[in-house]
Amino acid sequence: MSLGSINDKYMPKGMPKYRDIVKGWLPRYTGMDLNLFGDYILLTNFKDYVTSFAEQFSCDIYGENKPMQAATNTSGVTIINFGIGSPNAATIMDLLCACNPKGVLFLGKCGGLKKSAEIGHFILPIAAIRGEGTSDDYFPPEVPALPSFKLHKFVSQKIYERGYDYRTGVVYTTNRRVWEHDRGFLTKLNQLRCIAIDMETATIFVVGHHNQISRGALLLVSDVPTTPEGVKTEESDEQVTKKWADIHLQLGIEAMSDIGSKGEKIRHFRY
Amino acid sequence: MSLGSINDKYMPKGMPKYRDIVKGWLPRYTGMDLNLFGDYILLTNFKDYVTSFAEQFSCDIYGENKPMQAATNTSGVTIINFGIGSPNAATIMDLLCACNPKGVLFLGKCGGLKKSAEIGHFILPIAAIRGEGTSDDYFPPEVPALPSFKLHKFVSQKIYERGYDYRTGVVYTTNRRVWEHDRGFLTKLNQLRCIAIDMETATIFVVGHHNQISRGALLLVSDVPTTPEGVKTEESDEQVTKKWADIHLQLGIEAMSDIGSKGEKIRHFRY
Amino acid sequence: MSLGSINDKYMPKGMPKYRDIVKGWLPRYTGMDLNLFGDYILLTNFKDYVTSFAEQFSCDIYGENKPMQAATNTSGVTIINFGIGSPNAATIMDLLCACNPKGVLFLGKCGGLKKSAEIGHFILPIAAIRGEGTSDDYFPPEVPALPSFKLHKFVSQKIYERGYDYRTGVVYTTNRRVWEHDRGFLTKLNQLRCIAIDMETATIFVVGHHNQISRGALLLVSDVPTTPEGVKTEESDEQVTKKWADIHLQLGIEAMSDIGSKGEKIRHFRY
Repeated sequence: MSLGSINDKYMPKGMPKYRDIVKGWLPRYTGMDLNLFGDYILLTNFKDYVTSFAEQFSCDIYGENKPMQAATNTSGVTIINFGIGSPNAATIMDLLCACNPKGVLFLGKCGGLKKSAEIGHFILPIAAIRGEGTSDDYFPPEVPALPSFKLHKFVSQKIYERGYDYRTGVVYTTNRRVWEHDRGFLTKLNQLRCIAIDMETATIFVVGHHNQISRGALLLVSDVPTTPEGVKTEESDEQVTKKWADIHLQLGIEAMSDIGSKGEKIRHFRY
Repeated sequence: MSLGSINDKYMPKGMPKYRDIVKGWLPRYTGMDLNLFGDYILLTNFKDYVTSFAEQFSCDIYGENKPMQAATNTSGVTIINFGIGSPNAATIMDLLCACNPKGVLFLGKCGGLKKSAEIGHFILPIAAIRGEGTSDDYFPPEVPALPSFKLHKFVSQKIYERGYDYRTGVVYTTNRRVWEHDRGFLTKLNQLRCIAIDMETATIFVVGHHNQISRGALLLVSDVPTTPEGVKTEESDEQVTKKWADIHLQLGIEAMSDIGSKGEKIRHFRY
Repeated sequence: MSLGSINDKYMPKGMPKYRDIVKGWLPRYTGMDLNLFGDYILLTNFKDYVTSFAEQFSCDIYGENKPMQAATNTSGVTIINFGIGSPNAATIMDLLCACNPKGVLFLGKCGGLKKSAEIGHFILPIAAIRGEGTSDDYFPPEVPALPSFKLHKFVSQKIYERGYDYRTGVVYTTNRRVWEHDRGFLTKLNQLRCIAIDMETATIFVVGHHNQISRGALLLVSDVPTTPEGVKTEESDEQVTKKWADIHLQLGIEAMSDIGSKGEKIRHFRY
């Protein structure tokens, strides 16, 4: 199996270097120049989050006709809507090598798997199960998908100080969106004792680890698909958005704005 | 492993039925009402294709703030931009169960893997290797990822009659976008004798097979990432788009417009 | 694992070259001189087919006392009875390298697996599941067993023009002849959604792909072994033969006679 080792020296002569490729691709995917990227990145799947961010900070949105949209505020926080799914998550975590971010926080939505998990709760996953396959191209399956501890510690402190509650636990990341009727899959989720399911967290953690990028995820429970009344509908989704999405985004913005000055320094081992 | 069997009778009482879920979700993902979907569907990753389609037929684009955008012309052909990657491909092929399409053609771009494959060539893949994992939730790995023969036969005839050339062969579908510098991965692609690489085709074929939807893929070679001069750049991508994307879209539109009246009837076995 | 790469340069000194070996073996297996082989080949398991062919074209049958019998008509179509089973199928597809055929069509019989599949139907398999093991010596298991698209396109057109119907789908190729009472095996066939079962198709497809030979298969459903009345008997087999075998052979002859002049040119990528 390929371990995704990036090594320019094995490449055919004349082949562009890895870092040069991603430097070209990040602007191509987002429509935003490299020098406009801030040190701290918020990742989202929702165009709405980028729009709210841009309105709040009166900044431009780039990439309207590109696969990803991006905006940067004057504090050096950049928000990117990278789309849905683990391949897009891997792509943005690869492309971000072009701008050496100091921290990346994924603001995602997830499905709760516990009866006690209520819609609107926040989850700060301590790990994610790699049910998505995408991360297998980066590390063998026994490498756990983990956030950077100091980044999560800082985010958790922010949530706590703002008076909100959060849960920790393991999230299952899958490539499959419609699975509510697959009994075998539900049984497996239960056996693995996951508290939530999403489509990107494991990939962001593993590719971030591979590329030595500090990363985290703050997830909002937007549905509880294992109970009849919890399956997402047009109306339920709108209610979640109205009620919780603003707080979700604000927590992310505050955390990524302050972590540079107030957070503990994150050091990486070099391999 | 889950075989993705959908069976409403095992669900908790009160749980919405599978078909009811997707009937709610397809409009939620695309912003387009169910009754506006045509019998024949073009799938694309490019917003541009939807825009060109809508301009050509003077029809509305739905879902500007949704994960997917869609438009339908008066001949009953619908185009959907479902985004990038195998999870999105699986999602749209699941959601399309809501409107029972008679044929689905994916208009994608791919990376060529042969020296002889030149940028701008069309590929009509006879199969795809399931390197994406997503399709494993639907069928065990020995089930090949295949297009519907009669649909591809019709599309190939269209290309041939229009005086264009196409290549057939096996495409490798991966979840990884940036792999050009992974030597082991390149060696594997060569041993498997793939002619191109993309991120959706295997998933569309397998989930289409699972959901008994006639499907095909017409791919445009947009880069040849294994040669120094073939790696995609902003400029090279624009040149391909300018020169070939129009023809690509037109071939797709013509094929999906005429297959209902001129194609051989496609019958499905019931399992 | 062997990837079946044929490379004379790794051979001990003095070892005859691969092509020289098969040039000696093809005549030894069939009793027919190399220069008598036509450009287009029909493969069959049935001596009767060779006899009918020879009577129709008043040509000689070679190899009466050899493992395989062969005959060539004046249009350059050769028919070969290569015997039963995947090892024989691999052997003939290797030996045919000696005469560089432009197209090979397998006329085989198969067992139908669907209730709706009736005895006497034609199947043009879009792929075969490699349940036979033999093809693993040529390519790793993720490489699908496929016919050449343009060859099948031409054959399908012939069938259509002659007013017959055909079905497409995936065939399961096994090395086991008697499996009707293996419940687990039947369940697997059902989960894999195969429409028929045979003993050679996957091997012919994979070894043909390996040796860069254009290949196809036109299968005749000769029994439906999963239903009590469908298990093959002496009488049922004779009835099928009387009624359908002639048409089967004629469709094969016509397709292989005309494809050179009327078919689309098939190009191979070189690897």
